[in-house]
Amino acid sequence: MSTSTKFEDTTATFTGWASSGSLPLKKFTYHPRPLGPKDVEVEVTHCGICGSDVSTITGGWGPLPAPCIAGHEIVGTVVAAGPQSLRHVGELVGIGGVINSCGKCKDCTRGFQQLCTKKSFVFNDIYHDGSNIETRGGFADRIRVNSEFAYRIPPEISPAEAAPLLCAGITTYTPLKHFGAGPGKRVGVMGIGGLGHLAIQWAAAFKADEIVAISTSDSKREEAKKLGATKFVNSRNEEERKAARHSLDILLLTSNDKDTDWSELIDYVANHGTLVLLAMPEIPTIAVPPAALLMRHVSIAGSLTGGREITQEMLDFAAETGVRPWIITMPMSDPNAAVKVTMEGRPRYRVVMETEAAARLKKH
Amino acid sequence: MSTSTKFEDTTATFTGWASSGSLPLKKFTYHPRPLGPKDVEVEVTHCGICGSDVSTITGGWGPLPAPCIAGHEIVGTVVAAGPQSLRHVGELVGIGGVINSCGKCKDCTRGFQQLCTKKSFVFNDIYHDGSNIETRGGFADRIRVNSEFAYRIPPEISPAEAAPLLCAGITTYTPLKHFGAGPGKRVGVMGIGGLGHLAIQWAAAFKADEIVAISTSDSKREEAKKLGATKFVNSRNEEERKAARHSLDILLLTSNDKDTDWSELIDYVANHGTLVLLAMPEIPTIAVPPAALLMRHVSIAGSLTGGREITQEMLDFAAETGVRPWIITMPMSDPNAAVKVTMEGRPRYRVVMETEAAARLKKH
Repeated sequence: MSTSTKFEDTTATFTGWASSGSLPLKKFTYHPRPLGPKDVEVEVTHCGICGSDVSTITGGWGPLPAPCIAGHEIVGTVVAAGPQSLRHVGELVGIGGVINSCGKCKDCTRGFQQLCTKKSFVFNDIYHDGSNIETRGGFADRIRVNSEFAYRIPPEISPAEAAPLLCAGITTYTPLKHFGAGPGKRVGVMGIGGLGHLAIQWAAAFKADEIVAISTSDSKREEAKKLGATKFVNSRNEEERKAARHSLDILLLTSNDKDTDWSELIDYVANHGTLVLLAMPEIPTIAVPPAALLMRHVSIAGSLTGGREITQEMLDFAAETGVRPWIITMPMSDPNAAVKVTMEGRPRYRVVMETEAAARLKKH
Repeated sequence: MSTSTKFEDTTATFTGWASSGSLPLKKFTYHPRPLGPKDVEVEVTHCGICGSDVSTITGGWGPLPAPCIAGHEIVGTVVAAGPQSLRHVGELVGIGGVINSCGKCKDCTRGFQQLCTKKSFVFNDIYHDGSNIETRGGFADRIRVNSEFAYRIPPEISPAEAAPLLCAGITTYTPLKHFGAGPGKRVGVMGIGGLGHLAIQWAAAFKADEIVAISTSDSKREEAKKLGATKFVNSRNEEERKAARHSLDILLLTSNDKDTDWSELIDYVANHGTLVLLAMPEIPTIAVPPAALLMRHVSIAGSLTGGREITQEMLDFAAETGVRPWIITMPMSDPNAAVKVTMEGRPRYRVVMETEAAARLKKH
């Protein structure tokens, strides 16, 4: 009965770094949900910092109902597993933005678990299985999740590099795959940051005809080409912008804000092409000029992280093709410093926080 | 040399009904472009009145550079033909929104002539072949166009009924075909008017699983079912609206205005579904809530009339399946009366103006 007692344990205390809607993050302890039969408990070694973590913890997406532990680019070691878990104790796993879903609906059964109406986001959400237990993310020492959403990390990928793949990686991989990036297609990536630098690499691995990196900063020009871009457009350079007009079959928009010029963006998209939003704006509506939709058959779409199957596929594809995030690591013991670097847009291209457990992992 | 002289004739005078940006329409005569080797001259027998005619002649889409003869749902008899014309004298033909294109670009060669950058709309445009000659539409006694854009009217379709197919018909047929309306798909049609009443019929002919007619007016309930709708939603009835939430794979929006509630519209669209705009708003931007794009993978698209091949296909498909517009005919000799009836939203569902030549046609 010791296994049963173990997986039902409710006395555990996890410690993380929480926000109530404004910085700084403060130390916060909580009792996790009981370890269910399919669940794993993971000792966090690494957690990336994404724009949506920042939007959440700064209150950009609205007030928080309770202290929130963000973090959804999580890597760590399984330290406990329910009897029906897909992962075993000692296994290195990755956890992304979604950690549970109903498993039965149309979206779950066709690989879009992230759209399930009963899905749970890894933080600032609840389990929609009747328990209503809050979810808390990876800016913490441990986390418990449904093991179906704990992905195998291929040995070719280091734990620190694996972390950003769980959000920035899958968020860019999913739409490029869905909209058919590959031979014959011209792919644009607007915003060369955490998401964008991976998008360029995926498009190159998919062998798209053209990969156009678009940025407001000339400082990204050389790096974009190193990442695989065939062309760089400084969007503040009118000549370069004009030369890229109506040229992109798929344009990924990695970030946006209230000043985003949607007309200018759509102007890059070729007839029949698609502009894909990857980040939730902090404003309720965006001002879309309909002319290009009607007169040039441009579409506007969005894409949210990825389902279970495609997330594992993405990790395996990264292992195989050598796609890797460019990261800087900082200690999770000072998360506010790491968040500050992220908010200043300084990292090239992702801050990954390491816990003390990461040091132990390296010694293995 | 008589043929040559005939097709180069520049002395002809055509008479139509023009607007300079406000009503009423006034009688206006002009010299058409010389009849080119591929051109036909058509004696107009019928011309439908579409929402975009109204937006143009009332100045809703902005000021008009010159007196404009609208009308782009044109049926008539070929009375002169250049030596390379695809149509012969005496043939009954239909003419829609686009009457010329370059024939060589990527869009022309893949059947999207309506997106060619050198296309000419049938009115309020110029020929982009270097001549810069103005185009003038079908609210007139005659018209000259490139015969490649003069479509064969199948004998099963009466000339009056054929007219609305050239715009309302092809505008709804193209996106339903493109987005795969048919078995397994749930199709919505918002706005049951000139376009909508044909969209319902196409979706039924394509054997879509569900065809949901959405209207603000209960008076359309029975008619929608007669047209082939499997369900009717009065969008002012909260209960009916809620029952239809997230249910449509394809939602055609046949009209819109500054009060259109885009959130409410998108709310009807199912995960992975598409909202398709079919009419150009009279406002420069529309306020789209991005949440559904990201969280439910809804797309927003637009569709503009149809290319050459699909327009002929649509006419043949209508002949075969019995899809027909419901029309009322009025004399073109009083076009302002016909426009007034259209603007008041009274026709069920399309006003088609008849010229005196139509009477002669009936006598044949």
